[in-house]
Amino acid sequence: MPPVETRLRVRYAETDQMGIVYYANYLVWMEVGRVEYCKARGFNYRDMERDDGVFLVVVEAQCRYLAPAMFDDEVIIETEVLEARARSIRFGYRVLHGAGGPLLAEGSTNHIVCGANRKPIRLPEKYRQYFAS
Amino acid sequence: MPPVETRLRVRYAETDQMGIVYYANYLVWMEVGRVEYCKARGFNYRDMERDDGVFLVVVEAQCRYLAPAMFDDEVIIETEVLEARARSIRFGYRVLHGAGGPLLAEGSTNHIVCGANRKPIRLPEKYRQYFAS
Amino acid sequence: MPPVETRLRVRYAETDQMGIVYYANYLVWMEVGRVEYCKARGFNYRDMERDDGVFLVVVEAQCRYLAPAMFDDEVIIETEVLEARARSIRFGYRVLHGAGGPLLAEGSTNHIVCGANRKPIRLPEKYRQYFAS
Amino acid sequence: MPPVETRLRVRYAETDQMGIVYYANYLVWMEVGRVEYCKARGFNYRDMERDDGVFLVVVEAQCRYLAPAMFDDEVIIETEVLEARARSIRFGYRVLHGAGGPLLAEGSTNHIVCGANRKPIRLPEKYRQYFAS
Repeated sequence: MPPVETRLRVRYAETDQMGIVYYANYLVWMEVGRVEYCKARGFNYRDMERDDGVFLVVVEAQCRYLAPAMFDDEVIIETEVLEARARSIRFGYRVLHGAGGPLLAEGSTNHIVCGANRKPIRLPEKYRQYFAS
Repeated sequence: MPPVETRLRVRYAETDQMGIVYYANYLVWMEVGRVEYCKARGFNYRDMERDDGVFLVVVEAQCRYLAPAMFDDEVIIETEVLEARARSIRFGYRVLHGAGGPLLAEGSTNHIVCGANRKPIRLPEKYRQYFAS
Repeated sequence: MPPVETRLRVRYAETDQMGIVYYANYLVWMEVGRVEYCKARGFNYRDMERDDGVFLVVVEAQCRYLAPAMFDDEVIIETEVLEARARSIRFGYRVLHGAGGPLLAEGSTNHIVCGANRKPIRLPEKYRQYFAS
Repeated sequence: MPPVETRLRVRYAETDQMGIVYYANYLVWMEVGRVEYCKARGFNYRDMERDDGVFLVVVEAQCRYLAPAMFDDEVIIETEVLEARARSIRFGYRVLHGAGGPLLAEGSTNHIVCGANRKPIRLPEKYRQYFAS
């Protein structure tokens, strides 16, 4: 399946005194990408948490920064599932400059599936189709 | 009672491309000041939420910005209770430059007391002494 | 002139352990609203800063919180100019639940016009039309 | 040289609706650790940027999350230099629960040395001693 594309515009709040986007914000954008990934695949991450008590807890995050994003730039987050197992899911991301520009960053996050009590569980059957890589 | 003093150091993440602290972060510092206010008065805000289900929900916040704070500056948050009622508490804050410098900002937040279901309640008796202004 | 409407979706990062949007984030949304206000009026805030060295430095911010915003909610920021003077501009904001829901918050920010050296200046002629209230 | 230890207390703003610290904030804490690392070694990161125009631009960040941090927890950031070259520096971090508790996270960041124009440069001689691993 092709990556899911999310567009957002860089906020002033996301810049730092170097005049570029502060590096931790790319992890926020990855989260925005994951949520849109779920919507594009046909369900809401919010409902999965709220209605089924299924949480995708981050156990690893990694990002390579290739070119800076600036205030008011439009950026595209391409999100895909790199690997889906019964108990864990790994997402991959590419952050691109919206105006056909360069690749700004690429990264990944690894998640374990947890129940409402934050104990690891197997991903319920109904969600498996959505995370097929 | 005198204000409670909290010291913190400006993080790089808190600056923006203007080279000064982004304005929303002062509200985060006010929250840090409130938590320290509670500790100085003899209880933990965390425990009040967790053990007694008492939440101080913000219903209004206001800040005047007088001079910019910069990366790595030490700032002092002076926190006090301006008004305490059965169902609401108003805090006041002064943000000062740590090195005997100027007043950077002053503001206030108004809170209603809520139970775990986010419905307004009266502040439980045991906490009244702590918020006496 | 009617307010300028900006839509955004609440990020997971913007929530706190109370399960609602952390209060400082409304000031970030106001900034997003200001930037969109400028675009809707016909210029870019970014360019005004970069090309003309004109900065709208926040000297006061105020927000009243009426109902909580939750993760994945769509919210609308309505932004307007409440008052424009030669040396200062005051914006007003209403934050609404996107699905025809209730008013979540309303607030205002007051700004002085500064040059690249952060000294107050008069708003250059070319920008006056854009901020007419 | 032993790692440099920095202590901080988890802010309410840093939690999310899962009731634990949002994952991007660990990268903010790593930055706080780097700044303290510099102070402990005898110089200010701020001055290096401001006076000598030397910037450590992040090109990669990575974090493994082992146990959650909660609101009001004291956490310790242990920061060390893993590798220092003429043009790049790699930091390693361990985030520990302050009360003798478990390891919460560990990670690393890789930086290239840049001049004021964001072009790569060699780390000036005077700073080499500070980053010896």
